[in-house]
Amino acid sequence: MPDDVLSFEKPDLELAAAAVIDATGADVAYCKFLTPNDTGETASHQAGFHVAKGAWPVILDHEGMKGQNTDKDWRICWNGQHITDSRAIYYGQGTRNEYRLTRFGTDFPYRHPENTGDLWVLTRRAGSSQLNAWVLSSEAAVDEFLGAFALSPENTNQLLDQRRGRSATVPDQADREARLISEYVAGLPEGLFPTTYEISRSARAIDAQVHRDAAPGLGPDSVIKRWAELEYRIFLAVEERTYGDLVAEGFETVDEFVDVANRVLNRRKSRAGHSLENHLAAIFDDAGVGYEAQVRTEGNRKPDFIFPSAQRYHDRDWPDSRLVFLAAKTTCKDRWRQILNEAARIPHKHLFTLQQGITSAQLDEMSEAGVTLVVPADNKRTFPPEHRDWILSLAEFIALVREVTV
Amino acid sequence: MPDDVLSFEKPDLELAAAAVIDATGADVAYCKFLTPNDTGETASHQAGFHVAKGAWPVILDHEGMKGQNTDKDWRICWNGQHITDSRAIYYGQGTRNEYRLTRFGTDFPYRHPENTGDLWVLTRRAGSSQLNAWVLSSEAAVDEFLGAFALSPENTNQLLDQRRGRSATVPDQADREARLISEYVAGLPEGLFPTTYEISRSARAIDAQVHRDAAPGLGPDSVIKRWAELEYRIFLAVEERTYGDLVAEGFETVDEFVDVANRVLNRRKSRAGHSLENHLAAIFDDAGVGYEAQVRTEGNRKPDFIFPSAQRYHDRDWPDSRLVFLAAKTTCKDRWRQILNEAARIPHKHLFTLQQGITSAQLDEMSEAGVTLVVPADNKRTFPPEHRDWILSLAEFIALVREVTV
Repeated sequence: MPDDVLSFEKPDLELAAAAVIDATGADVAYCKFLTPNDTGETASHQAGFHVAKGAWPVILDHEGMKGQNTDKDWRICWNGQHITDSRAIYYGQGTRNEYRLTRFGTDFPYRHPENTGDLWVLTRRAGSSQLNAWVLSSEAAVDEFLGAFALSPENTNQLLDQRRGRSATVPDQADREARLISEYVAGLPEGLFPTTYEISRSARAIDAQVHRDAAPGLGPDSVIKRWAELEYRIFLAVEERTYGDLVAEGFETVDEFVDVANRVLNRRKSRAGHSLENHLAAIFDDAGVGYEAQVRTEGNRKPDFIFPSAQRYHDRDWPDSRLVFLAAKTTCKDRWRQILNEAARIPHKHLFTLQQGITSAQLDEMSEAGVTLVVPADNKRTFPPEHRDWILSLAEFIALVREVTV
Repeated sequence: MPDDVLSFEKPDLELAAAAVIDATGADVAYCKFLTPNDTGETASHQAGFHVAKGAWPVILDHEGMKGQNTDKDWRICWNGQHITDSRAIYYGQGTRNEYRLTRFGTDFPYRHPENTGDLWVLTRRAGSSQLNAWVLSSEAAVDEFLGAFALSPENTNQLLDQRRGRSATVPDQADREARLISEYVAGLPEGLFPTTYEISRSARAIDAQVHRDAAPGLGPDSVIKRWAELEYRIFLAVEERTYGDLVAEGFETVDEFVDVANRVLNRRKSRAGHSLENHLAAIFDDAGVGYEAQVRTEGNRKPDFIFPSAQRYHDRDWPDSRLVFLAAKTTCKDRWRQILNEAARIPHKHLFTLQQGITSAQLDEMSEAGVTLVVPADNKRTFPPEHRDWILSLAEFIALVREVTV
């Protein structure tokens, strides 16, 4: 065997590590979950991967102008091993107004129905005629990448410029929000990083103040997304305040640096952990539906939410059909099966997730296993069309709970 | 539902993140894979978890002295949720000379046969009467923790003081090694981090020079462990040289800091990736056995090693019984099943791993699935006694290949 480099295939987690290294060294980076439209699963005539409007700098030099099409050719290296000669296009003629990356050639391995729900990362370096692209499939790899940048799935489909100080709401609301975040952060005790629970709660409190003049009645689906986005901005502000001075000083050795780096990055990873459950609990409180969280059902099992209560669950006279189970998982592509053994009295499981896009094959398996997905209403479009009918929005789920459990 | 903290259970990866944060903030930290002896699977009369001799500072204030026993009481918080009042003991009387942590009380959830092979992390802060302990079960969580500190399983069972500049070999060899590492690092091109392959190769080259006067014939089992340990020290030296100046300067924002932190830490994670395959290939070259790496067998499958060659694998006249398959996985607790679909002509699979300790239940499953483990000879003792007979050392595996494939 010759003494040259053996090209062993990269395991998925290593691919995630390579994508993180690449994105940190790039001038512009973008990530999104591939939708059925991107992977050709909707059988539309459109080709290639759709790129969000705000992310044009990763594929074009100038923003597209309505009335004309614009394009730019790129050599793209995918997962460090597959090269395509591709084209970025802004479609601005007629009624169209969208950006796409097209021309992946034959034998392109990353645009199949099974790529729906994969995380696609695209990076650009100034002066280079090549883009790097990464397609991460396993849930662990996706979580690894998102965690490195403190992102929840709701913070994707946009550029990775991490310090977006402002929300996308109207200007005076954005100002109010920025001021409230500053006040909150300034009031934190020295040297103590607030828990995810505390940051989640502050997000809801600040959101209520920012939108205090708004007409009520915005549904839970919009509210939970807004909370998730606001919480992200608060987290970044807390991070800056907690570690800003420390990292400004510099480090005598790489060892000392790595010590702090591990602390900061692992805090990012654990951030997304429970914010979802906390927000859902607040939504159910506001909606006035009866529920209990982390109820001990059988053995050591403690499902995320049981409706209407633990007492009813353990009351043998209360019919099974009037109990509802909800698990919450930020991403759930591979780990959804974990919920099947929970809450034996409730064979039909509901699973709330921020996961965007899941393949038809996996959705079929979920359906057969008696699992119904619950997602923010906006996210429904990221699932294959033939499955959207049985996927519930949060508002629909709450209506179901009201009807069934009372 | 009251507005207090919901205590949702920590998923395993979040536990790993918490363990990393804890270990980086501690004054002394130690980790090891739990052995059958630790978990009571050997049914020995010894109680508690064994602690390596060099790791006494994590449980005692003074090194144990032969001839007498010493102990110290500790409150220990396990996985952030379970408290024990435990005792650290040095047994120095009679023929004994060992450190243990004992007294975990009844209902202790982390000392069962199924904890064999879990990664146990123990941390100590100066002035505190409490230790923190973490028990990580899933392979993903274990990899996450090891990756954060750039450790391979061979670097465990010792304190996490990361810059051990010297090897454990005799002094003049250690000096020679340190000098050779410095020379190697000084000769690297500016700003380019060498690949894992290059670092692996330099480890073998430096090892050959350090031990040039030693009697030949040290078996492959010792050699591959020595390479892995040396490679770790080289990696740390390369890291210091590559990032030392950069981190000394300090960072204007947490964002800039996180950028570099992601780069450094993800390099650590991908480090362990292929060094194992590279070292194994070198071992087989030295042993003069015929093999081929990353051969395309069926479809896109490319097993790590096929003996004696791809040509024989695809030669229908060559009997199945004279082919051998070897996969290599640094850890394999959960992912060993991935190899079952590789190399259809060879139903009996061999799997080389640095994993230390696997439960009897999992070993039974492997055995039933036709998988034989191959481990460095020293690691056999980390497996349950009743399974050690069918686990091969690397030397035994090479002998088997010689016998079968020629």
